[in-house]
Amino acid sequence: MRAVDIIVKKRDGQALSQAEIEWFIQEYTAGSIPDYQAAALLMAIFFKGMSRQETVTLTQAMAHSGQLMDLSDITDYAVDKHSSGGVGDKTTLVVLPLVAAFGVPVAKMSGRGLGFSGGTLDKLESIAGFNVQLTEAQFREQAKQYGIVLCGQTGELAPADGKLYALRDVTGTVPSIPLIAGSIMSKKLASGAKGIVLDVKCGSGAFMPTVEAAQELAQVMVEIGTDAGRDMVALISDMSQPLGHAVGNALEVTEAIETLRGRGPKDFRLHCLEVATYLLKIAGRGEKWQHEVETRSLLEEKLDNGEALAKFRLLIEIQGGDVQMVDNPALLPQASMIENFLAEKAGYIAQVAADKVAMAVLAMGGGRTKKGDVLDLAVGVEVLVSVGEEVREGQPLFAIHANDAAKLDEARQFLAQAIQYSDKRVLPVPLFYGVIEGKK
Amino acid sequence: MRAVDIIVKKRDGQALSQAEIEWFIQEYTAGSIPDYQAAALLMAIFFKGMSRQETVTLTQAMAHSGQLMDLSDITDYAVDKHSSGGVGDKTTLVVLPLVAAFGVPVAKMSGRGLGFSGGTLDKLESIAGFNVQLTEAQFREQAKQYGIVLCGQTGELAPADGKLYALRDVTGTVPSIPLIAGSIMSKKLASGAKGIVLDVKCGSGAFMPTVEAAQELAQVMVEIGTDAGRDMVALISDMSQPLGHAVGNALEVTEAIETLRGRGPKDFRLHCLEVATYLLKIAGRGEKWQHEVETRSLLEEKLDNGEALAKFRLLIEIQGGDVQMVDNPALLPQASMIENFLAEKAGYIAQVAADKVAMAVLAMGGGRTKKGDVLDLAVGVEVLVSVGEEVREGQPLFAIHANDAAKLDEARQFLAQAIQYSDKRVLPVPLFYGVIEGKK
Repeated sequence: MRAVDIIVKKRDGQALSQAEIEWFIQEYTAGSIPDYQAAALLMAIFFKGMSRQETVTLTQAMAHSGQLMDLSDITDYAVDKHSSGGVGDKTTLVVLPLVAAFGVPVAKMSGRGLGFSGGTLDKLESIAGFNVQLTEAQFREQAKQYGIVLCGQTGELAPADGKLYALRDVTGTVPSIPLIAGSIMSKKLASGAKGIVLDVKCGSGAFMPTVEAAQELAQVMVEIGTDAGRDMVALISDMSQPLGHAVGNALEVTEAIETLRGRGPKDFRLHCLEVATYLLKIAGRGEKWQHEVETRSLLEEKLDNGEALAKFRLLIEIQGGDVQMVDNPALLPQASMIENFLAEKAGYIAQVAADKVAMAVLAMGGGRTKKGDVLDLAVGVEVLVSVGEEVREGQPLFAIHANDAAKLDEARQFLAQAIQYSDKRVLPVPLFYGVIEGKK
Repeated sequence: MRAVDIIVKKRDGQALSQAEIEWFIQEYTAGSIPDYQAAALLMAIFFKGMSRQETVTLTQAMAHSGQLMDLSDITDYAVDKHSSGGVGDKTTLVVLPLVAAFGVPVAKMSGRGLGFSGGTLDKLESIAGFNVQLTEAQFREQAKQYGIVLCGQTGELAPADGKLYALRDVTGTVPSIPLIAGSIMSKKLASGAKGIVLDVKCGSGAFMPTVEAAQELAQVMVEIGTDAGRDMVALISDMSQPLGHAVGNALEVTEAIETLRGRGPKDFRLHCLEVATYLLKIAGRGEKWQHEVETRSLLEEKLDNGEALAKFRLLIEIQGGDVQMVDNPALLPQASMIENFLAEKAGYIAQVAADKVAMAVLAMGGGRTKKGDVLDLAVGVEVLVSVGEEVREGQPLFAIHANDAAKLDEARQFLAQAIQYSDKRVLPVPLFYGVIEGKK
């Protein structure tokens, strides 16, 4: 086989065979196919797309390019969740202990934030002492003994994806549905979960700008997982405005703890309940937790009676974190300045643009513009209004948590761009736009 | 500027600015932009094309990436011809001395053959002693003193093109009109000619398969040259069947000498007269040789009275070639076996596929499958029939000149694929499909 023939075939809109895709990924991972040929293939895929069969083959080839996690000694049926990334998305911090409270083992590897999207590992590092770097042995031991673990990748899962993702980033080939789906799902398949709930977000603060694009991506990912023998659910959720109130690492941990205490913003609580409902439904494998309304009340109970919080406290404790910070979130990193951003006129809130809020937090050092940037975990923005709310002039819309006056001013400018007012009543934005369940 | 932003802009179908194109070419030539980003941009150009303005800018940027030849000390108006490459295309060997016989200085750099296309330098090396490697000083001196020179490139013209062409070859981005046009024209612009006649071929033995594709390429090249201040003519010529009878290096030199003696195949003689007519028309600059029919008879005279042949003999002599071979082409390299390929049935010839004839010659070692291959200059195929001719069963269609019986058999199989018969009368193929003249 020759790489150039495979590039030409895709360029001309033909479907690649399983042998061609597997050979290309194997040789590229081994360094035998140079980056420039991979870049040309990626751009041809950007323009010509991939069939379901090709996308599944590509994803499996990337998943098999490195070590495959085998969790069968921990549980006979591991579940996992994945969010496509958003602004204020601290769902994992709530959903993991909540599901663990039902005795379902949750052993999850998360990532760091980049650009608009925050990262669960960064958020957790707001808690002093919390160790996100576990060895595989520690990961397995903790999962077995306590049924809950949340850390960074223990080894290199799907190295082909890592290499291809870095290349896509510098060759303008990121926004391609089969490549995005393949990238996400290759790591999910390699991580060994048998049931996967995907939270695919759309809107200005998400990777997918529209509901339609998110649905398309979700559909492809569900197909990949299903064809690979996994039980799949994908939720399409809104990310036109931030999720919950808190955006910024320590602020988000505080909000997650509040939610685990049975409080927290209503939209965020509902979002967590929805994700957890489907995780339990999948984990129940047709026997338990199949009735969504019943499951919902069981979940609310665990949030309200402190069982979910206890699991979170356990997670923090066994990974070396300071549990006093869980008991009293005021001990988490605090910004030196808190200033309100006030409504400049009365009206209905027509927009709270998630991307602009994220840029405000980035400007204050709460997010990364490039890999390796060190974060200021204390800074962030509390979003005090949602689309559809009526506000009066001078009412606080945001509380800005900053450590630097100049950066605070920068953040203020982004927040001014985030808000739009309307004279007429505006409908609230739905939390979810739909659910796609995999059919075998 | 960032390379990735330029890639994304083109990927999304926007026109690149002059500054962006110039920066990209400059940084790529300098090695500051890696091959993988250039590969992604090339594939984006393949899909999204380039405007006339962009193509001209790209070509000029590639032309200016290295040394620009200045021929003003040799002539105030240099002319050049370029063929897009074909099977049996020995036109330069006839046209150059023919035009030189009118006192028009011709100082041309040619290339080697690769794949289907033969190369003028390889053909000339059939003549013992002929030196194709001149220094720039030798090139200039000979052009000044004798008004005729034909050799390989003296320095690196348009190095950006060399680098990009090598990359296109392995990334499936060769067949893109702006990239092909830019590649050819960047070298032509860098070589300093003020008037350029392009011979753009179409058909199975050419780079462009159809008349329409060749016309499009020709149009773009004429536009590039015109916008760069050059006088341009492009001929669209047929390459569905070989040009003339001879395909193979020494055989083609023999045919060129025959033609310079006023004989040779009619189609090839007409082709040379047409190209030379436009070269003189351009060289005449509105003052001389403007009337094509008159020019044609002047040209025929020079072919028939031996003046063109004398210029060819002079060219061979001053570059160290054995002029006895010109006087007696039987002294040129000769194959050890000559076998006829006979018509297997009676009928009209419906096809003599140029690509299959080229593959027969390649199979016998008369062409290159990769750069650096050493050629057998003696082998080749004489094509004894043209499309439209009526043949009887057992009539010779080809004479195969070989040095190896096994390779001769291989050649025979390709030739069998080249021929198609028809029971009904078939029209001859036109030599030319049109002319495009640049308008300033």
